Amino acid sequence: MAGEVFKTRITVRYEHCDAAGIIFYPNCFLFINRAVEDWFKTELGCDWLTYHIDRGLAIPTARLEVDFKAPSYMNDALDWEMRVTHLGTRSVRLAHEASCAGQTRIQVAHGLVVASKDDIKPVPIPDDIRAQMERFVIPD
Amino acid sequence: MAGEVFKTRITVRYEHCDAAGIIFYPNCFLFINRAVEDWFKTELGCDWLTYHIDRGLAIPTARLEVDFKAPSYMNDALDWEMRVTHLGTRSVRLAHEASCAGQTRIQVAHGLVVASKDDIKPVPIPDDIRAQMERFVIPD
Amino acid sequence: MAGEVFKTRITVRYEHCDAAGIIFYPNCFLFINRAVEDWFKTELGCDWLTYHIDRGLAIPTARLEVDFKAPSYMNDALDWEMRVTHLGTRSVRLAHEASCAGQTRIQVAHGLVVASKDDIKPVPIPDDIRAQMERFVIPD
Amino acid sequence: MAGEVFKTRITVRYEHCDAAGIIFYPNCFLFINRAVEDWFKTELGCDWLTYHIDRGLAIPTARLEVDFKAPSYMNDALDWEMRVTHLGTRSVRLAHEASCAGQTRIQVAHGLVVASKDDIKPVPIPDDIRAQMERFVIPD
Repeated sequence: MAGEVFKTRITVRYEHCDAAGIIFYPNCFLFINRAVEDWFKTELGCDWLTYHIDRGLAIPTARLEVDFKAPSYMNDALDWEMRVTHLGTRSVRLAHEASCAGQTRIQVAHGLVVASKDDIKPVPIPDDIRAQMERFVIPD
Repeated sequence: MAGEVFKTRITVRYEHCDAAGIIFYPNCFLFINRAVEDWFKTELGCDWLTYHIDRGLAIPTARLEVDFKAPSYMNDALDWEMRVTHLGTRSVRLAHEASCAGQTRIQVAHGLVVASKDDIKPVPIPDDIRAQMERFVIPD
Repeated sequence: MAGEVFKTRITVRYEHCDAAGIIFYPNCFLFINRAVEDWFKTELGCDWLTYHIDRGLAIPTARLEVDFKAPSYMNDALDWEMRVTHLGTRSVRLAHEASCAGQTRIQVAHGLVVASKDDIKPVPIPDDIRAQMERFVIPD
Repeated sequence: MAGEVFKTRITVRYEHCDAAGIIFYPNCFLFINRAVEDWFKTELGCDWLTYHIDRGLAIPTARLEVDFKAPSYMNDALDWEMRVTHLGTRSVRLAHEASCAGQTRIQVAHGLVVASKDDIKPVPIPDDIRAQMERFVIPD
């Protein structure tokens, strides 16, 4: 049931670039967040409006390790791949890899926690979401 | 000549918070970038307009390791401390630590490269900038 | 009791500039929002954490008219001035003017509505906030 | 040859929403900018990497009039329509209208100037770009 990779494509826009003409690196974290948001919406069966507002949950990031292997420029279409490297009771670890025309650009190890939105305290991953996350488990 | 810590204070604004009421984590990277920008301007003798436009340099981030220890809320004043953990020929490693009212919030290991703005290829750190960076060296 | 101008200073940072080397204009709206946020905090006696979370209010923007008179560059310190041009029952109109070294850069007519955060429906401006807003009324 | 409307669809993401749960209005200007960027790329035959870097041009916004008719929420898909209301020698005026499920959300009158990227001084709209802009002229 495991072994799937979540794939999306993200285009670098004018708004993401800085005075050096390349992606301003804080904007890479918008892309990381966007990949997770789209994964919830299209694969986990729980879009983030439902997740945050209706179900009262949050998903704070606890840890990030990011390697920027090569710069990205305006109009670059980034092929984004994401998998689950560890699925805990209250937390999940993801690996992201973004490439462009076959060149690796960004590699990310990403630890997230499922939490109550009210107090940002960890809570167990709800069963329905967890069951879908399991499809994407590929340990390192 | 080494041993100094660069200190600044960054206030979490409305614009940094998300629907969960806490800092949207991509915005933490604006803070990390801001700390480095202010360090160049106030301590290294080379503001980023001069650095990027007049001197034709860039300073891409090559690696980030970030631990989010506790959430931050609107109006929190973050005490930001930064030091140099390694000063290479073409690269520098920084450690950032942000706290609020004595509680550690964010810890960052941050690798940057000094590069030519034209092609984003590494170049030696200019002597004048390097001499000032040395004041802030405190190895791990 | 009227006639005061709210003044603040906003520095253009690296994060606000685009590939053309000037402020990316959407970021000017962060500055407009920041001026209003600081006005609430320092002059109106109700910071936005209290306003949004404790009091359950929102302050959506209904209308903006903005003239960009001259471009702004990295490191420019913008002298920001703001006054109330009309104080309604549920709405307020502000005029912003940003200048740098005496040169007018941005002029804004800004209509905002005081609303319930739950449904974004207009509600009367609370008396305590209204009383402080009156200090800043200078009609066109 | 005139009379076309440029249409695109923009989805409100988590990253665009604030602590009030609706679009943080500065982010609407990212959408306005995105519509213009996509128009250049898909209709005017000159993507913004080419426009800014290869051709040395910029397109600063000179004036904006924006009416926010109704709030937008996370996951809303905005139907974005844009036309040219006036085509000058060095400037162009656009009208944007964003709606969701038939409800008008945002109306914008947007004045832009074609400029040299070096000094942000107005220059004539290049003939190839102007010829394509003419297709979208629908005066008010």
